[in-house]
Amino acid sequence: MKAWKIVVATGLAGLLWGCATCPLCPMKEKEPKRYAWVTGLKPEKAAYYKDLHAHPWASVNKQLKACHIQNYSIYVREIEGKLYLFSYLEYTGDDFDGDMKKMAADPETQRWWKETDPCQAPLPDAAAKGKIWSDTEEVYHLN
Amino acid sequence: MKAWKIVVATGLAGLLWGCATCPLCPMKEKEPKRYAWVTGLKPEKAAYYKDLHAHPWASVNKQLKACHIQNYSIYVREIEGKLYLFSYLEYTGDDFDGDMKKMAADPETQRWWKETDPCQAPLPDAAAKGKIWSDTEEVYHLN
Repeated sequence: MKAWKIVVATGLAGLLWGCATCPLCPMKEKEPKRYAWVTGLKPEKAAYYKDLHAHPWASVNKQLKACHIQNYSIYVREIEGKLYLFSYLEYTGDDFDGDMKKMAADPETQRWWKETDPCQAPLPDAAAKGKIWSDTEEVYHLN
Repeated sequence: MKAWKIVVATGLAGLLWGCATCPLCPMKEKEPKRYAWVTGLKPEKAAYYKDLHAHPWASVNKQLKACHIQNYSIYVREIEGKLYLFSYLEYTGDDFDGDMKKMAADPETQRWWKETDPCQAPLPDAAAKGKIWSDTEEVYHLN
């Protein structure tokens, strides 16, 4: 084999290997599953809820990451005199229910929820199931 | 220079070049700016609004992309007997207001809004400004 062929082949191999091994490449990640939820926020607890979330506990964020949650945001908005929270998150794992059970079993997350749960005013459908957040329906998505 | 050095150097250059030129690498992208908005949805127009968004026009999606919008989702949810829309999107450009003006000047987008605007019931603060969507306040984010 001529020297230039070895150089080209090695360069090409390096290029392909660089692409295939790059840990940041989204090609290797599957499309995340999106979740968006809504719940009420008690006005008298709004300041405390915001303060908690402005300084989230590292242990809880770490547990969320361990449970394959990414790009998780919570928004607050007043509608007709009441406060509501909207959350958006992306799930990259294979077992959402299992990961949610892991979250619920984590002592630090339980400690966090002991602070946040009393701030929230679940909508009737969530309250009926003993849950905090209500599901929404995705009607549009653009990647 | 010895042949093996040329091979190693060429391979390394190929690897770095592969990484640096990969169009999918998020390293090259800056952190997008997130926007989340809310508006009302007229119940008698809900089915039409959903149908429009289940089959969005390619021209409008293309214009959104050209205006640096990505990961754009819209959700619907009933709260206390009324329907609301929540949108979440990420902006990757450098001039949000300018890009929004570009959207507003696009004839296809204008045609699309002619269909969607009458479906929506803006909240008072948006209505007062002649707008459709109301801002929300981000209280938490996890990457």
